[in-house]
Amino acid sequence: MIGQIPPPDVRSRHRAAQRQTQLLKPLGALGRLEELACWFAARQGRDIPQSLVPAINVFAADHGVATHGVSAYPQSVTRSMLHSLANGQAAIAVLARELGAIYDVIDVGVISDEASLPGVLIHRVAKGTQDLSVMPAMSTAQAAQVMQVGAAQAMHCIERGSNLLIAGEVGIGNTTSAACLIAAFTGHPATLIVGTGTGLDQDGHDRKVAVVQRALTRVSTQTDPMQLLAELGGFEIAAMCGFYLQSIRMGMPVLLDGFIATAAALVACALEPAARDWMLASHRSAELGHALALEHLQLQPLFNLDLRLGEGSGAALAVPLLQSALRLHREMATFAEAGVAGA
Amino acid sequence: MIGQIPPPDVRSRHRAAQRQTQLLKPLGALGRLEELACWFAARQGRDIPQSLVPAINVFAADHGVATHGVSAYPQSVTRSMLHSLANGQAAIAVLARELGAIYDVIDVGVISDEASLPGVLIHRVAKGTQDLSVMPAMSTAQAAQVMQVGAAQAMHCIERGSNLLIAGEVGIGNTTSAACLIAAFTGHPATLIVGTGTGLDQDGHDRKVAVVQRALTRVSTQTDPMQLLAELGGFEIAAMCGFYLQSIRMGMPVLLDGFIATAAALVACALEPAARDWMLASHRSAELGHALALEHLQLQPLFNLDLRLGEGSGAALAVPLLQSALRLHREMATFAEAGVAGA
Repeated sequence: MIGQIPPPDVRSRHRAAQRQTQLLKPLGALGRLEELACWFAARQGRDIPQSLVPAINVFAADHGVATHGVSAYPQSVTRSMLHSLANGQAAIAVLARELGAIYDVIDVGVISDEASLPGVLIHRVAKGTQDLSVMPAMSTAQAAQVMQVGAAQAMHCIERGSNLLIAGEVGIGNTTSAACLIAAFTGHPATLIVGTGTGLDQDGHDRKVAVVQRALTRVSTQTDPMQLLAELGGFEIAAMCGFYLQSIRMGMPVLLDGFIATAAALVACALEPAARDWMLASHRSAELGHALALEHLQLQPLFNLDLRLGEGSGAALAVPLLQSALRLHREMATFAEAGVAGA
Repeated sequence: MIGQIPPPDVRSRHRAAQRQTQLLKPLGALGRLEELACWFAARQGRDIPQSLVPAINVFAADHGVATHGVSAYPQSVTRSMLHSLANGQAAIAVLARELGAIYDVIDVGVISDEASLPGVLIHRVAKGTQDLSVMPAMSTAQAAQVMQVGAAQAMHCIERGSNLLIAGEVGIGNTTSAACLIAAFTGHPATLIVGTGTGLDQDGHDRKVAVVQRALTRVSTQTDPMQLLAELGGFEIAAMCGFYLQSIRMGMPVLLDGFIATAAALVACALEPAARDWMLASHRSAELGHALALEHLQLQPLFNLDLRLGEGSGAALAVPLLQSALRLHREMATFAEAGVAGA
């Protein structure tokens, strides 16, 4: 990957915070929106940050572990969803259209023989991962290769003018992989991390916990982040990790979605701790371990609407709040400009 | 006021809920957005609700109780804010512009001699209320008169095509009035309701608690909602109450902002309990008693961003989430349409 992670610009942050004290409102009355304006000021290096140009990249891949019945849906759904992501029918496609976002769908490892598919970028590393409960999901070479795909996507988004990067995903079985990664990187037990994913029943949930525990036992002495990513990850998760890191190296902040996205962020921050300063959490999902993963990263989500869809949907929903925070910072008058007496 | 409060349409709600089970996502994966789509279906009487056309009306008035030093700002700020609300400099003006909302500013009782002001509708009932700590803030005739102003505004918004009505307010001292109303209608003590408003220090806060307690003692045997509104309210709060009730009688839902708006909603629901079925809570504000007021109405806010600005700002910030919920309901494919296997 290209570049070093830049430090946020503390002078721009300071000047933005000064401006917040002068805007026509009681100090602090816009709560977290004030913090957000200052946060973007530090990332953009401008006292008055520019409007956000969001880019949403949805990475899709299959998971060998899906054969254990850890999802409520058949594995073929991943491939089917590629079509719906590309033709505008899936939730994230609807939201991306509403936002006018830059939007790409990337197959990084779906079980499919199709060499091309309209509206989908095909960068298939393999047809799904291996079964992570018994062997490494992928080789470290494959992990590095798919991270490069994500990194190249981030660069492509930035070339098209994006200044806020969002990664989404589709992949039947990927909450199992994400749960493994979150458990490995936070140290919390599987029972506190594993949720019901797309809607498992109790038996399915118990099976999923057992699968995660088995995988964690297998890698219990492993601490190298790249090795853990290869052992427990998915191609889409590795791609997201590369996407985040390259975006951040280019000085562009990333907005995290839910459980899977936060697992990828944990890997990214294990590889590069400074990356965390460029991450915003959009929402806390309904998936059990998400709160613990966010806590580990010391990221505070903007809302909790019991979402558990993935695809990048929760992040997309948060974009208007961020835009409003910046617009208020930019367009409100100061007390002096308005000729209003202060406190 | 005109009309009776209509019941929500349970058949449209049911059909909307059916549609949610068929959309291309795990059942329940869009969390509260699914509920919101069904909620609007029942209010619009359509399985697939139409886009929201928000109208934001900001009511401004002064408060006799402000002479007790219950605000961090001088009383003259109310009048100054009228200009900034009208010329686009205030926070809610920025947000209304961003939303493309119908937007009115109404002076219902500011201390001012100006007979006209560009961009402001003048319906001044009096130049501020009386000091509610020692006497009724207004007569019941004045309360009824200003409720009619709010009601006429609601009708005017609906005539212009709005299907989602938002009331905001400006009025130095109005968190004191709202705290009195919330305490009176919920039965909770002043110490659990009174917050720091626009930024009082500890002395100011103690003074404000004492003022609220004095007012509550004065009306302790009173239970008639109109009488309590006249005793403890403000002109802008009474206007908001009339605005809500007329909107709801016309079958249009209202989106509540923060502490003051919820106080007005409490009065409206005391007058007409069925009104509550047409109210959505946008956010939980940082003002102490807001959570208790929402709980009393059994309304669950969409987010908590530590806002405490008023003006309708929190409600305006929630509109994109509501639009997204409806757009997903409308534009996502079903599993059958997408040719994707179900769970």
